Amino acid sequence: MPLLTRIRGPRDLDRLSLEQLDQLAEEIRTFLVEAVSKTGGHLGPNLGVVELTIAMHRVFDSPKDKVLWDTGHQSYVHKLLTGRQDFSKLKMKGGLSGYPSQAESEHDVIENSHASTVLGWADGLAKANQIRKRGDHVVAVIGDGALTGGMAWEALNNIADAKDRPLVIVVNDNERSYAPTIGGLANHLATLRTTEGYERFLARTKEVLERTPVVGKPLFDTLHGAKKGLKDFIAPQGMFEDLGLKYVGPIDGHDIEALESALVRAKRFGGPVIVHCLTEKGRGYQPALQDEADRFHAVGKIHPDTGLPIASSGADWTSVFGEEMVRLGMERKDVVAITAAMLQPVGLEKFAKAFPERVFDVGIAEQHGAVSAAGLATGGLHPVFAVYATFLNRAFDQVLMDVALHKCGVTFVLDRAGITGTDGASHNGMWDMSILQVVPGLRLAAPRDADQVRAQLREAVEVKDAPTVVRFSKGAVGPAVPAVGRIGGMDVLREPGTDAPDVLLVSVGALAPMCLEIAGLLDQQGISTTVVDPRWVKPVDEAMAPLAEQHRVVVTVEDNSRVGGVGSAVAQALRDAGVDVPLRDFGIPPRFLDHATRAEVMAEIGLTAPDIARQVTGLVSKLDGRFEQVESVEPARD
Amino acid sequence: MPLLTRIRGPRDLDRLSLEQLDQLAEEIRTFLVEAVSKTGGHLGPNLGVVELTIAMHRVFDSPKDKVLWDTGHQSYVHKLLTGRQDFSKLKMKGGLSGYPSQAESEHDVIENSHASTVLGWADGLAKANQIRKRGDHVVAVIGDGALTGGMAWEALNNIADAKDRPLVIVVNDNERSYAPTIGGLANHLATLRTTEGYERFLARTKEVLERTPVVGKPLFDTLHGAKKGLKDFIAPQGMFEDLGLKYVGPIDGHDIEALESALVRAKRFGGPVIVHCLTEKGRGYQPALQDEADRFHAVGKIHPDTGLPIASSGADWTSVFGEEMVRLGMERKDVVAITAAMLQPVGLEKFAKAFPERVFDVGIAEQHGAVSAAGLATGGLHPVFAVYATFLNRAFDQVLMDVALHKCGVTFVLDRAGITGTDGASHNGMWDMSILQVVPGLRLAAPRDADQVRAQLREAVEVKDAPTVVRFSKGAVGPAVPAVGRIGGMDVLREPGTDAPDVLLVSVGALAPMCLEIAGLLDQQGISTTVVDPRWVKPVDEAMAPLAEQHRVVVTVEDNSRVGGVGSAVAQALRDAGVDVPLRDFGIPPRFLDHATRAEVMAEIGLTAPDIARQVTGLVSKLDGRFEQVESVEPARD
Repeated sequence: MPLLTRIRGPRDLDRLSLEQLDQLAEEIRTFLVEAVSKTGGHLGPNLGVVELTIAMHRVFDSPKDKVLWDTGHQSYVHKLLTGRQDFSKLKMKGGLSGYPSQAESEHDVIENSHASTVLGWADGLAKANQIRKRGDHVVAVIGDGALTGGMAWEALNNIADAKDRPLVIVVNDNERSYAPTIGGLANHLATLRTTEGYERFLARTKEVLERTPVVGKPLFDTLHGAKKGLKDFIAPQGMFEDLGLKYVGPIDGHDIEALESALVRAKRFGGPVIVHCLTEKGRGYQPALQDEADRFHAVGKIHPDTGLPIASSGADWTSVFGEEMVRLGMERKDVVAITAAMLQPVGLEKFAKAFPERVFDVGIAEQHGAVSAAGLATGGLHPVFAVYATFLNRAFDQVLMDVALHKCGVTFVLDRAGITGTDGASHNGMWDMSILQVVPGLRLAAPRDADQVRAQLREAVEVKDAPTVVRFSKGAVGPAVPAVGRIGGMDVLREPGTDAPDVLLVSVGALAPMCLEIAGLLDQQGISTTVVDPRWVKPVDEAMAPLAEQHRVVVTVEDNSRVGGVGSAVAQALRDAGVDVPLRDFGIPPRFLDHATRAEVMAEIGLTAPDIARQVTGLVSKLDGRFEQVESVEPARD
Repeated sequence: MPLLTRIRGPRDLDRLSLEQLDQLAEEIRTFLVEAVSKTGGHLGPNLGVVELTIAMHRVFDSPKDKVLWDTGHQSYVHKLLTGRQDFSKLKMKGGLSGYPSQAESEHDVIENSHASTVLGWADGLAKANQIRKRGDHVVAVIGDGALTGGMAWEALNNIADAKDRPLVIVVNDNERSYAPTIGGLANHLATLRTTEGYERFLARTKEVLERTPVVGKPLFDTLHGAKKGLKDFIAPQGMFEDLGLKYVGPIDGHDIEALESALVRAKRFGGPVIVHCLTEKGRGYQPALQDEADRFHAVGKIHPDTGLPIASSGADWTSVFGEEMVRLGMERKDVVAITAAMLQPVGLEKFAKAFPERVFDVGIAEQHGAVSAAGLATGGLHPVFAVYATFLNRAFDQVLMDVALHKCGVTFVLDRAGITGTDGASHNGMWDMSILQVVPGLRLAAPRDADQVRAQLREAVEVKDAPTVVRFSKGAVGPAVPAVGRIGGMDVLREPGTDAPDVLLVSVGALAPMCLEIAGLLDQQGISTTVVDPRWVKPVDEAMAPLAEQHRVVVTVEDNSRVGGVGSAVAQALRDAGVDVPLRDFGIPPRFLDHATRAEVMAEIGLTAPDIARQVTGLVSKLDGRFEQVESVEPARD
């Protein structure tokens, strides 16, 4: 990599010739395939923006100018060009983040992996530049998929409003989000892609019309001078220009010279401009190009030549859900499925194949997913909206005000709930069991194993007058954890073995094996423990308070923010029942989590069996010697 | 009202002549001004949709066809035509809701007062009709202002995708949301409004061109037959048609015959159609038409002839905030303000007059308000986003993932927090202190009086590395509640008068006078009480746990959902400190609240001084006779 290794920062690009830039692009592609094969990561999107990133860093002067990336997984090339070429620990603890990171580089701004936000950031930064009278430029890259998100529209509407506020929007159009982009906008972009260039058409038309002096010349002048001009008729980029945004394009997103030329024009324009670039996801890597599903959007460790995965993982939570959905679909004609541009990642591919007319990809539009679900339910169907837990946050108001207020039977299936780890702060699904607690009538299930996923999904779709939620973890599902009894609606996972038990341990979802391990450790200390899995963590089971009253301490363990989570809900239920047994709640501390493996994160925050057992032992000792001086019990480390 | 009183349902409209329909419209306007003058309510929007509502109910067959209203405050005429003509208790307990209500009528669907949702509902209902092979129609009315919301865009993108799924979208274009609509879309709609009708132009062009056989006829054919046709060039409704939506308009929204004709065409089309209607907010009522600020969007009781308010209210929370913002703006050039289409209702009008270049109306786009605030803060400014508490729910993900994750100094001022009452379930701001608890680093203030609003706003804008929130109630602000001491960062509002106090009463925000009243009632029972106002309720003050430990019982009182609110946060802080003093948390029960006055709602849910004092007395008695048989203490009634 003779050229790449010499790039320490964006300005090192300035002295390269066009030929050298093309060579650099090739080096970067080779680097990306080799590096990401070893670590896993977002391969397809980054292969698609190599030339675009080079051109942007030649035309704009980062970090003085702000170069912004939507859904930051397309920032690997940007990292390579801004002094970060050690990808050996990509997404691993202590290594590079899979997203932009302010801690890594002054060239990074938006760390958030949630889509469609970049134009809002850009609008704010451009407004600040204007108010502070700074001449710096703001350039924002957004995918065609992310334009289907409502935030992008809200931002475009605002950006278009100020003709004198410079802002360059690069639409990275690869016709896909994870999967092919859907909706009217995608059709419109397709029209733009296939339409003859404006200038060429204009020249030709003028030639024809000028041959007919009676009406030709006046008509041409009329057309040319009209408010929107002939341009709209020929190249119907009308949508953007109707909003008041100057449009440049379409540009070949793999032609550095063309890209630079367009970006320079846009930069000089002095107002908001859209530069429409056509790129190819997975560009230059055959295995990606041949993968129609998602073009190697995100991969694990793979063989670089074949693109085949190195480790085949066992059954995962997602596929257990996906297969049960197919069975449900066969049994119940009213069950329909919704995805927000992630049909495959949320496990709905098989359902879509079996029932193509009963699955709706709404685009990267979680709000619409939830609201249209309310409409579908009111229309007599039972929608199942499968979505990553972290993304449901975007539809909180719609879950509350559209689904719950109207008592609609809608089931939300939250994949990647809890600590997901390597994708960093914004991918963890650690807030759902807190914010959904406030939604009246909503019932929330946290299945502990594959059997429970199947069973609770079925229980959920039986509920006709309220939202239901089924949330599960990322990755491989563990072995079955059998119940040894039942109290109320709760599964007993372990009996205390004594009539005067010490601890009631409330286990949430996938943490059941850890809770059984905690009980074993406590047993070694002579502390008897009942372990229950409430299965439905909202509402708190009516049997909880009477059961708690039979114990000396209640302990809750959940894979969710401690704040307002299941522990808090159980504590409130006990207070309401007048049961003042001491309670300790273990979960995720109230801060953002850096990228690392799930196990590393859990160890770091003290969410492990030995840590929790040690603290519970301390509390029980304190209760034994209530009036002795005992050091205070600490919560899970923050 | 000879005609109106004979209308019992929509089908009674069928036999009226056009002249009678015009007369009916006049009767309805007279009725609305008279009725709403007496009760208060949304006057301007309903005066604007009289003819539109009549035409819709003649063309569509509700409730078989679904007639859907966005932001349901424009549904008064719909109520009058569907059997609800007793407006004497509008928005009052037991009277008609100010919004559609499924409990009131089978003609009502969406009860939610949050804007921009209707197209999502319509998309869901239309999909259900298609799957269930039902020929019913779906017609959705959305304002031009609500089209600035991202959800509307997400829905349009989906609706446009299915050419064979019938759905009629009526754009009720009055050029305003609360205030004039902003952004690129508004400019585009303005172009549509002023453009010559398509059919007329087409006819004229054809005539001209056919006179020039050499190029005229072929050119006309080319133009006419091209993918998008001449229509786009002449009447640039391109934006909608680019998405794939058939466009009909613009239609005079006060011409019943023209409206019916357009609606009939749209209904027959068999796919998604936009009918663009031009209406006048406040139509026919001079005082409204002369009010440039918001055209009598929502009024209190007024004199019907003059439109002047009957009671002048005292200083309210909003104006205290608004005036302090002006002072802050003079002192600090970096302070900028954001509103989501509600400049006047959130009190930013004076700031906007003083600093027009430092206020941003982002449209009905709370997501963009929050994200662009992150950009503004990153750009070196300190944005203050003033928004109704209930609407911030829509930007939860942006507060979390854009503002908090990036440690941006952004202040959110939540107006109408807590129980607002007469606007019903979706206007209460009763979730903010729960869901915002999970946001790392966020600091939340609940000022108890006007002085505290001013002081805490100033403290909030000093915070540079985290989001801050200042939340206050709707309506008149009470007299000052002085502090008698300070413990940590908490104001002591009442000393217990004994060295061994019984109750620590934690008062949140505007409930301070009620908490002092509770303390007085407890005092009469011989129960000594300390009352503290934490001022900043998140994070829980470090002095809280040690103080709690000096009491026998901790009681929290807040104007927010009990679930996950301040009470839960205090309880968790006590647990974390190993302080197991019994705690009881009073607040709003976890259900939606029907419309009634704030006082009526609070009485109904047991959030009154006598109710709470009685329950605390019961708890203290129980502790006194710990082993006696005492009836269990109930939480606030649910």
